[in-house]
Amino acid sequence: MSSEGASEECLGWAATDTSGVLSPYKFSRRAVGDDDVYVKISHCGVCYADVAWTRNTLGNSVYPCVPGHEIAGIVTKVGSNVHGFSVGDHVGVGTYVNSCRDCEFCDDGLEHHCVKGSVFTFNGVDHDGTITKGGYSKFIVVHERYCFLIPKSYPLASAAPLLCAGITVYSPMMRHKMNQPGKSLGVIGLGGLGHMAVKFGKAFGLNVTVFSTSISKKEEALSLLGADRFVVSSDQEEMRALAKSLDFIVDTASGPHSFDPYMALLKSFGVLALVGFPGEIKIHPGLLIMGSRTVSGSGVGGTKEIRDMIEFCVANEIHPNIEVVPIQYANEALDRVIKKDVKYRFVIDIENSLN
Amino acid sequence: MSSEGASEECLGWAATDTSGVLSPYKFSRRAVGDDDVYVKISHCGVCYADVAWTRNTLGNSVYPCVPGHEIAGIVTKVGSNVHGFSVGDHVGVGTYVNSCRDCEFCDDGLEHHCVKGSVFTFNGVDHDGTITKGGYSKFIVVHERYCFLIPKSYPLASAAPLLCAGITVYSPMMRHKMNQPGKSLGVIGLGGLGHMAVKFGKAFGLNVTVFSTSISKKEEALSLLGADRFVVSSDQEEMRALAKSLDFIVDTASGPHSFDPYMALLKSFGVLALVGFPGEIKIHPGLLIMGSRTVSGSGVGGTKEIRDMIEFCVANEIHPNIEVVPIQYANEALDRVIKKDVKYRFVIDIENSLN
Repeated sequence: MSSEGASEECLGWAATDTSGVLSPYKFSRRAVGDDDVYVKISHCGVCYADVAWTRNTLGNSVYPCVPGHEIAGIVTKVGSNVHGFSVGDHVGVGTYVNSCRDCEFCDDGLEHHCVKGSVFTFNGVDHDGTITKGGYSKFIVVHERYCFLIPKSYPLASAAPLLCAGITVYSPMMRHKMNQPGKSLGVIGLGGLGHMAVKFGKAFGLNVTVFSTSISKKEEALSLLGADRFVVSSDQEEMRALAKSLDFIVDTASGPHSFDPYMALLKSFGVLALVGFPGEIKIHPGLLIMGSRTVSGSGVGGTKEIRDMIEFCVANEIHPNIEVVPIQYANEALDRVIKKDVKYRFVIDIENSLN
Repeated sequence: MSSEGASEECLGWAATDTSGVLSPYKFSRRAVGDDDVYVKISHCGVCYADVAWTRNTLGNSVYPCVPGHEIAGIVTKVGSNVHGFSVGDHVGVGTYVNSCRDCEFCDDGLEHHCVKGSVFTFNGVDHDGTITKGGYSKFIVVHERYCFLIPKSYPLASAAPLLCAGITVYSPMMRHKMNQPGKSLGVIGLGGLGHMAVKFGKAFGLNVTVFSTSISKKEEALSLLGADRFVVSSDQEEMRALAKSLDFIVDTASGPHSFDPYMALLKSFGVLALVGFPGEIKIHPGLLIMGSRTVSGSGVGGTKEIRDMIEFCVANEIHPNIEVVPIQYANEALDRVIKKDVKYRFVIDIENSLN
């Protein structure tokens, strides 16, 4: 890859050890290659992945670690071969920034399943050997394939959470044909992912029931997010009354939870899409076999799906509910993500606070 | 329902208590109604369900219990409204003999998921309140909807196991689009269901790998059934070598077994169809989420699928491997089913032995 000019120093916020505490950190981004786009970051969403890697939860963190993979911003330079973007375009960058571009999955626009492994946007090893650094930073340089046009009518702050939370629920909902008006959807958990599942579900014309451990979310689920019904999952009577009533469930809950009570709510041929990260999954085989039910995992989505999702959100005026915070609030934001004290996604205002 | 003539006495073999021991037993079958077909039974396959209900494994057996739901025979009377069958036709009857015929599933030819419950061919409660009695008997009277034409070129003894073992693997294989030539299929377990999955897999043009706990089945799997590869599931090295190599798995194993070692063999978007009856299903969520993998249960199939399967078996000359035994051997056959000492399905020669 040739480059236009030299590499450039970038200011970000990084964790330097397993405490995960973030502080200002300067590092070098590669020069803009022929196929690259240089994105001046305006906003970055706060995802649980930011907690996991800054605190080395998975045991593979490389420090300093600059988190952030829900990136929105403005193109300020493009390489000589770039065809899809121009200076001034609003764009997003999601959870991966590279892939082999040559395998069956890349060929199908499903780069997140690249057989050689997609390169994560932060804490990943890029093809040049460098450790990737994420969106808690002033700018990013990325191959245009992993960059997504955001129409200027759609706020960049709203766009940021689409790149992980949004696509993570949109992709399995489309794959399992949940976009059939009149069908019924259950959404387990009402965080960053769950609240997007409710919004997509309503836009698809579904009857949406939210399942939560806490009654405290009822009012907002119904009035603010537009869900049709709210069930406290510990209410066994109400759960029993809903037996075999749902066509689909999107399970966004993280942490250990039972599956059988939810599987029993699915009609025959019903599908539970698993997008949260629970403990071990345990299911009674009869619930799968007798009802021909399905459990299907999913994580993020491919580049084609991401473009489709952005179009869908723009056309249907779907916006994540966000709390915009300055970078100086990042450590507190991550703490609150751990406590699930978010309504429903933090978005860091990089443009106006990272200096 | 009007009837042509009176009810008729039928000779069968029944279990009279939880010992499950079968002996001759006379009972009454209903008269042939306007929509009914009277089938003189020539053959009946021996399914594990016959063991389960004759021995009250599920706690809901009604005695005397006449088992058998893989029925093949010849039409000898038809009701005045019957349009699909004539006297002399060869036919099959499967695992259910009634349903509401009015719900969304019945309307789609998926009567086994009837919202009011399909009526099992034996040990079921039919709409007239009688307890159904199965195919270990001289004849059966059944609504024509639950009866399937068998071309006369196809042996009735071979047809019998299609009605449960055959459709139980064919249905999910079609639903999950496993009929794509060149794709790869794993089959776990090599009994009545597993050996049919291998045969369907080869007919679909798949590359088929059999997984078994015992090396003793290798020679037959490869030479007799035509599998491409045989793996002893305890061989960790060989299992590791197959990581992410399979598009599909049909899991026919009954009894507790691990799922994670098999899930790890699936490519991204791979599907494991569960048709055996294992113990509790336990799966690491990462194996589902990271590879967008699916676990989907299935049991038997709808009337439309059964007709399609019979056509497919006839066109592709697919025959179950059977051991034909007289009714006097039924108790020993059931004992050998429990011991998994069958290659690969017992079929009782009702016509020539039940007198």
